Amino acid sequence: MTRVLAVLGKGVVDPETPILPADDLGVLRGDGVFETMHLRPDGPWLFDAHLDRMERSAARMDVPLPPRAALVELAALARAEWPDGAEGALRLVCTRGTETGGPVTCYATLNPIPAEFQRQRREGLRIATATLGVSSQVRGDAPWLLGGVKSISYGVNMASQRWAARQGLDDVLWVSADGYALEAPTSTLLWLDGDVFCTVPTSTGILPGTTGRHLLDHAHELGWRAEERMIRPTELESTDGAWLVSSARGVAAIKELDSAKLPESQHHTQLQQLGGFPSA
Amino acid sequence: MTRVLAVLGKGVVDPETPILPADDLGVLRGDGVFETMHLRPDGPWLFDAHLDRMERSAARMDVPLPPRAALVELAALARAEWPDGAEGALRLVCTRGTETGGPVTCYATLNPIPAEFQRQRREGLRIATATLGVSSQVRGDAPWLLGGVKSISYGVNMASQRWAARQGLDDVLWVSADGYALEAPTSTLLWLDGDVFCTVPTSTGILPGTTGRHLLDHAHELGWRAEERMIRPTELESTDGAWLVSSARGVAAIKELDSAKLPESQHHTQLQQLGGFPSA
Repeated sequence: MTRVLAVLGKGVVDPETPILPADDLGVLRGDGVFETMHLRPDGPWLFDAHLDRMERSAARMDVPLPPRAALVELAALARAEWPDGAEGALRLVCTRGTETGGPVTCYATLNPIPAEFQRQRREGLRIATATLGVSSQVRGDAPWLLGGVKSISYGVNMASQRWAARQGLDDVLWVSADGYALEAPTSTLLWLDGDVFCTVPTSTGILPGTTGRHLLDHAHELGWRAEERMIRPTELESTDGAWLVSSARGVAAIKELDSAKLPESQHHTQLQQLGGFPSA
Repeated sequence: MTRVLAVLGKGVVDPETPILPADDLGVLRGDGVFETMHLRPDGPWLFDAHLDRMERSAARMDVPLPPRAALVELAALARAEWPDGAEGALRLVCTRGTETGGPVTCYATLNPIPAEFQRQRREGLRIATATLGVSSQVRGDAPWLLGGVKSISYGVNMASQRWAARQGLDDVLWVSADGYALEAPTSTLLWLDGDVFCTVPTSTGILPGTTGRHLLDHAHELGWRAEERMIRPTELESTDGAWLVSSARGVAAIKELDSAKLPESQHHTQLQQLGGFPSA
């Protein structure tokens, strides 16, 4: 499997090489930020939007992110080693550095898109709801809860997905304590209601999705308007289709939620194309 | 500053040496477990209780922790390099290993106790409440929220403490969505009500504290009985003293909560001694 690693201050290095000391706060405390992008033949898709979000995450966590030019160069270094024209998952990671102080640890990795995601783009998803425990309002008033921040503290995200996998499911849809659909651990929720293309307001503390934002911003090309709405999971059954989207996963239709079939949209292929993802 | 690092499969290595590859899930996903213990002249204090908790955390996260004998040996390797008789903070860390599979990454570190903690044992704490967003009940029914698990995904823990520090405070006391005191980001809450020594029930999803457990189990030596109770933060003002305790911090009295003075207990020094922490 092809993998590439480029490290700030070191350039391209063998991806097997250890680069983090034992007391890096990234591993001791999950203390850092990251972004995952879809690498396409013409470069990382929505690169500026991802860098904008990484800067916002870092500012919220007081992580001194290197200048944007350094992140762009890291990505370029990694990309130069990647097979021409191949789809890839480009990740930028920046931890706070070691416990004893010193500079951040910052690097770019390039990996193939998991085969699982490519299958999900074609075949859709069977998922279940799972509470995230928090109300749809609390994170807006409590910045220390890191709503909207893409930190590397993904312990609960990964545990939620393992819980789904143990039931033979593809993912979970997190639900707020007051019963509203929020997001998936690594994807944004979108749904179609007639000619209104919807997502969840970021005031709920969900991560503002870059792929979701792109699709909503281009919804008019399919004759739709875009809107932020609150929705209860069972209400998704009476929409005109629902999707989980992310940079690496692409556009994946939710075909089953808590064992209930969701309507199959005739627009799925159009959405894949609107996002520029390889056709299903 | 003296620091020691011992790595599973490698033994004692220079603590500056990079040991984790870029795609270790510990740093990519905050995906792993840890324990911090108080190293004393006669060994790591409450070692078995910490290893028990680490095994429970690993089981809850499906992290294949090495056999206990290997963890004990790692700690012994580190300790052999530590100055005789010096107090220290011994940490055991175990991540899930790299994204492409393979063994866990497991190591022990030894560091001095932060001077800040030694000051707090003497002078007490000024802290503020901060919501954790979740109710006191939800985590018991939602194992994917990792209540009671000591994972390395401490992003919210650290953000909570930075939020406190920006206000010139020593720490926060997390409060549930339904208004009950829970715990601090790295410490257990204890309080005295007459001759009843209290802590918060673990059914709330707090981490079961080892130092707190020891003090409660020995409360009878001070003529007290131990109890688990729910309490609202303002009710702490009418107790007979409240403390935040942890292995590294020791026993630190809460002297101010949300700018209200808390009663000063005459038993503080006895509690330090009951915990075997160097006298204030």
